[in-house]
Amino acid sequence: MLVATRNPLNIGAAARAMSNFGFLNLCLVNPYDPSFREARSAVGASELLAGAQEFEGVAEAVADCTLVVGTTAVGSREVRHPVKRLEDGAPLIRKRLKTGRVALLFGSEKFGLSNEDLSHCNWLLRIPTRQEHRSMNLGQAVAICLYELARNTKRVLPPDQHHPATAGDIDRVAALLLEALHASGSLRARSETRTEEKLRRLMRRHSLSAEDAKFWLGMFRQIVWKLRSPK
Amino acid sequence: MLVATRNPLNIGAAARAMSNFGFLNLCLVNPYDPSFREARSAVGASELLAGAQEFEGVAEAVADCTLVVGTTAVGSREVRHPVKRLEDGAPLIRKRLKTGRVALLFGSEKFGLSNEDLSHCNWLLRIPTRQEHRSMNLGQAVAICLYELARNTKRVLPPDQHHPATAGDIDRVAALLLEALHASGSLRARSETRTEEKLRRLMRRHSLSAEDAKFWLGMFRQIVWKLRSPK
Repeated sequence: MLVATRNPLNIGAAARAMSNFGFLNLCLVNPYDPSFREARSAVGASELLAGAQEFEGVAEAVADCTLVVGTTAVGSREVRHPVKRLEDGAPLIRKRLKTGRVALLFGSEKFGLSNEDLSHCNWLLRIPTRQEHRSMNLGQAVAICLYELARNTKRVLPPDQHHPATAGDIDRVAALLLEALHASGSLRARSETRTEEKLRRLMRRHSLSAEDAKFWLGMFRQIVWKLRSPK
Repeated sequence: MLVATRNPLNIGAAARAMSNFGFLNLCLVNPYDPSFREARSAVGASELLAGAQEFEGVAEAVADCTLVVGTTAVGSREVRHPVKRLEDGAPLIRKRLKTGRVALLFGSEKFGLSNEDLSHCNWLLRIPTRQEHRSMNLGQAVAICLYELARNTKRVLPPDQHHPATAGDIDRVAALLLEALHASGSLRARSETRTEEKLRRLMRRHSLSAEDAKFWLGMFRQIVWKLRSPK
């Protein structure tokens, strides 16, 4: 829910982030009309913008919500509402979303939410920015809040892409590399066992995939062949 | 680190989010010059923009970094790099930040990161957006990544025992290995760029320590020397 937003680029950016994270109900309270018209033609989230609802005041816009959360850049001392850090507030919003509608209010670029706007809020959210530079760009603030709300939900783990190399593959790579060292004359008999162990340990630590091992084997085979062949 | 960014508003928005969350080193790789000049006059993070560094290529920009992470909107099937969800990747980045520099790469608005750019990355981050609308606005994507990196930082992670190799070290290992392949005659000119990218990708994925890099360098130097010397 954007209240009194002026910049069409910010309306467009908010809509795009909503679409990115699957929050599809945009409400505009008292928007600056030319901005809204201009934003509608923005790329990326035209469907969402076409379905946006317009309201004259916050009261009617939040009428069917069971939780109304404002956003603020200021610290908790300056406002009379409870202020929660985004990562602490998000689970409460998610919980409430299971049983009803929740409104998340963003104020105008210049002034934020007014006292009248704030009076409709149950509590406020703050994105934990640096003390020295607290105020965020509106489109970025919307994106971060929605990212946090969608964070870690409906988590689908991708299938494991990585087919690890077998210990045998890794030993073969290490053995070939050892042979290359031999052929290049850089291996002293005295330290051979130690070098072999070190090589094998190294190759294991690199967590090769089966494909990697194949690539390394091909490469070292060629190098060893060349080292051994008469010039 | 913004690579080939076109829109001055996006450069400005990225700088503002960096300032909001306390990440103060902006690097621009191959920026579109007029955009960069225009962005410098943007409000909100002028100090940060004034101190931004410019580079011609990713290699030199990441040379002193011990971890290079790319960002992507696509799923893990389409790319050959390991892809981590933002909330899974962030703790790894935070941990690495304690002992060295980390680069977080964002590609151009239109094309994202190129294969050449990606070959410098250890792994990729993905912001978990909806399947139906994956691609995010650049400024918003930067803001979300930095928010997640700064999120809950009061939690203390154990210090990293392992001293990771820098991107420059790894490039040197990959370059020597490439030279060994050349000298062994197994490299066709046609596929050289592809092999180089593959090698670099492979070496990054193996998360070498500084000591490992030294070991590999010594080994490959000897092999190359032998391959090049007359018998």
